[in-house]
Amino acid sequence: MTLQGTYDSLLQKNKKAIIYQMIQAQLGWDFETYMPKKGGQQRSMQFATLAADIHKLMTDPKIGELINNIKTDPDYSSLSDIQKRNLYLVEKEYNRQTKLPADLVEEIAKHQVIAIETWKEAKAAKNYAMFKPELKKSLDLQKKRAHYLDPDKHPYDVLLDIYEPNMTSAMITRLFNELKEGLVPLIKKIQSAPNQPDTSFLSRSCPISIQETLATDLSNVVHYDLDCGRIDTTEHPFTTGYYQDVRITTHYYENEFDNALFSTMHEAGHAIYEQNLDEAFRYQPLGQAASLGLHESQSRFFENIIGRSPEFWEYYLPRFKELTGDIFADIDAQFFIHAINHVKPSKIRVTADEVTYSLHVIIRFEIERDLSEGKITVEELPTIWNQKYKDYLGVDIEDDSEGVMQDTHWAAGLFGYFPTYALGNIYNAMQLHVIRKELPNYDDLVRTGNLKPILEWLTKKVHQPANLYDPADLMQQITNEPINTKYFIEYCTNKYSKLYAF
Amino acid sequence: MTLQGTYDSLLQKNKKAIIYQMIQAQLGWDFETYMPKKGGQQRSMQFATLAADIHKLMTDPKIGELINNIKTDPDYSSLSDIQKRNLYLVEKEYNRQTKLPADLVEEIAKHQVIAIETWKEAKAAKNYAMFKPELKKSLDLQKKRAHYLDPDKHPYDVLLDIYEPNMTSAMITRLFNELKEGLVPLIKKIQSAPNQPDTSFLSRSCPISIQETLATDLSNVVHYDLDCGRIDTTEHPFTTGYYQDVRITTHYYENEFDNALFSTMHEAGHAIYEQNLDEAFRYQPLGQAASLGLHESQSRFFENIIGRSPEFWEYYLPRFKELTGDIFADIDAQFFIHAINHVKPSKIRVTADEVTYSLHVIIRFEIERDLSEGKITVEELPTIWNQKYKDYLGVDIEDDSEGVMQDTHWAAGLFGYFPTYALGNIYNAMQLHVIRKELPNYDDLVRTGNLKPILEWLTKKVHQPANLYDPADLMQQITNEPINTKYFIEYCTNKYSKLYAF
Repeated sequence: MTLQGTYDSLLQKNKKAIIYQMIQAQLGWDFETYMPKKGGQQRSMQFATLAADIHKLMTDPKIGELINNIKTDPDYSSLSDIQKRNLYLVEKEYNRQTKLPADLVEEIAKHQVIAIETWKEAKAAKNYAMFKPELKKSLDLQKKRAHYLDPDKHPYDVLLDIYEPNMTSAMITRLFNELKEGLVPLIKKIQSAPNQPDTSFLSRSCPISIQETLATDLSNVVHYDLDCGRIDTTEHPFTTGYYQDVRITTHYYENEFDNALFSTMHEAGHAIYEQNLDEAFRYQPLGQAASLGLHESQSRFFENIIGRSPEFWEYYLPRFKELTGDIFADIDAQFFIHAINHVKPSKIRVTADEVTYSLHVIIRFEIERDLSEGKITVEELPTIWNQKYKDYLGVDIEDDSEGVMQDTHWAAGLFGYFPTYALGNIYNAMQLHVIRKELPNYDDLVRTGNLKPILEWLTKKVHQPANLYDPADLMQQITNEPINTKYFIEYCTNKYSKLYAF
Repeated sequence: MTLQGTYDSLLQKNKKAIIYQMIQAQLGWDFETYMPKKGGQQRSMQFATLAADIHKLMTDPKIGELINNIKTDPDYSSLSDIQKRNLYLVEKEYNRQTKLPADLVEEIAKHQVIAIETWKEAKAAKNYAMFKPELKKSLDLQKKRAHYLDPDKHPYDVLLDIYEPNMTSAMITRLFNELKEGLVPLIKKIQSAPNQPDTSFLSRSCPISIQETLATDLSNVVHYDLDCGRIDTTEHPFTTGYYQDVRITTHYYENEFDNALFSTMHEAGHAIYEQNLDEAFRYQPLGQAASLGLHESQSRFFENIIGRSPEFWEYYLPRFKELTGDIFADIDAQFFIHAINHVKPSKIRVTADEVTYSLHVIIRFEIERDLSEGKITVEELPTIWNQKYKDYLGVDIEDDSEGVMQDTHWAAGLFGYFPTYALGNIYNAMQLHVIRKELPNYDDLVRTGNLKPILEWLTKKVHQPANLYDPADLMQQITNEPINTKYFIEYCTNKYSKLYAF
């Protein structure tokens, strides 16, 4: 076979796995949204069958052969950079899938179900002791997994790489230490500022039908294409899909309109990324986001950098008032903007504001890193957790349900995942800095709701490259700088010193 | 391998195909209900991949070997009747799938897309000449298909067998001739009766939210289990799913509340059949309805025999009035019942009433049969069609869009499918006759909305046997009679002579 023929065969095999993953995602969406109550047993048969087939497709020894044939072909260097990147991505995934012994994969899958069930019970019972043994086992299994994947690397770096390719623990430690140094004093300043917002109007009753209209309207405003997507409701909002069918969910609470509003903007940001990947890469390994951190940079760009900016509400508040009738007629722009930017250290990550959010993530990262290095034990976890919440956020954790057991990630075996949430903030502040240079009228664009040029910039620089580069390389290309926290700290300092007038 | 081991392997292989078909059905449901406008291209990749894999699973030569090993095993006779039936069904499907040359399968699939597109255009343009060549090709391809499947059988019988196993053209000709003889004079009597209903209230405005409540309420009343199902909307209502996840669709028109009401009852009847198949047969070849005719017997049982009965509305009208507020407060039971049983010969099958409906189907059957035997040609079709509508229903067809081009079936290559619609009426009238003997208080049960004993009877006699028998054998078992039209004609005569007072 010619080199091109071998390459095409390899991509053809991979394409089939991608199509099965799309089907898997679609069934997952239905599971979360519309599946009848008792449909679970049948759905799990479908999931199991698909998962086994995808695993078989991705670990087919023929893939190893094709990769080897390409790499040893005398004309290898004639491949384009795009072809080489596709090859690299297939090989990386093939190695990841084939290096793990089948019994470990099975053990992890089985343990995950038990650990999540136990976590739910333990959380409800506020009983960490109940969860502890399962958490310990989750951690041990992930360490084992990391060892199989690469025995020579720091186990936490191996896990990080799954979510944020080639990111290291050392790098994150440096970035997060800078963030702490910048944010902890800023939060103290904000808290002690006399000018605190009145947020009481946020709990005014706002009919769900109005919130639905708002969600659709905001999707249109930010150019989330609903001809290639849709909005449904779930308890935990999420985004799923691929290119021309990328769906988001939100949730509507009558007395928390801001919840649906910002979760819609957040998920729309994720969806926009997927919808705008380079069409040429569809059905190729390249046709996916560069990393979870990059993904989060886009969701938080639309949720926070645009969605909570004073400029955006200059444009959108009149429209918001029009769509909500008389409910918020008495609320002026400054009042509204201050309220949706209320900074208040709290115990729960998912409802944290833009400034304190990163500290929640930093706490989880430091614990994960120290656990993986054996510096701390699962025994000590609640004590360490509570101390860090006191030190960084100044809050007292009263029970472990709102402390160390608040998130499902560790039960699900997701170690190395949390840092991507805060990396999103770091990345998008860096992007914003460049956008402001390249679109000098950025503020005016936001002020007039003309987000198209901004979307086009993001599409060209962030979305279109898809998975052509690892995140650090992509960020370097976009910004001409290594990853750094300077712009996020600056962004927060500027925005909040104005809002809180200090 | 032991005989049992071989049998288990065969069923295991088949089970995988069943699970893929469930996934296919789920993606089809999403395609019709919630898929974003531009999701079609990606969905078609998913469909094509699944279809190819299912075909591969079902034509795997290993299946042929396993079947052969079982049938030649000296202990073959030790298999239970259930095991033998499963074997029979797998073998029948295996033969059907492997006998067709791949290029014919492909040609049929490709032509179907073209023929449906052309049919849509020709129908819109009221131009039969445009559709004619595609229709001719559809027919030729289906004749070819029948020849490959069984060159020794009447081609129409081969096609019929796909939808109504082992039904023959001769048998249907006999049954449908009886129906014509019984129904044509009955319809004339009904038409000439002085006592015609006033149906004007059927077009009163009824808000869609109320119609939704009615649909859910009626589903509960007929015991369509919404914990294992759901109701959504599509232009053409349908039912899809399997055992614990069987979904129906309906459509709501503000000025035709009866449309949603009876389509919901109809589809709920289909869904109830699927939900009540014997649990022991799930994931086995046996775990499906016996035929499309039997399926239609259940949908029409709930739509017509229960749903349009005077007894049911004695029970349900007060509740209907309660749920619809003041809208129908002035309509009394007799008035209401007469209106929903308005018999009026018309041009369009899908909106036909209970009595004239069968004649629409008979016309299509006679044409299909005569076409397949070469007694008539595609050229003559409109003339023959229009003449039959004049003779059987007394209506004048003005253009071919409302005549020979009204249904999509022929464009889709569905020859041999139409008769199952009228067989449903024949079957369920026979079932009703036995139910009335075995549940002497049948009328009282309906009158009090206590449908549970009736559902239990249907479940035991019709649903639970699933695909254990061919339809004629199942009907013989249930009724102790060969299939006959006596009870349907009696049912219509009794019901409508009372309603129209003749």
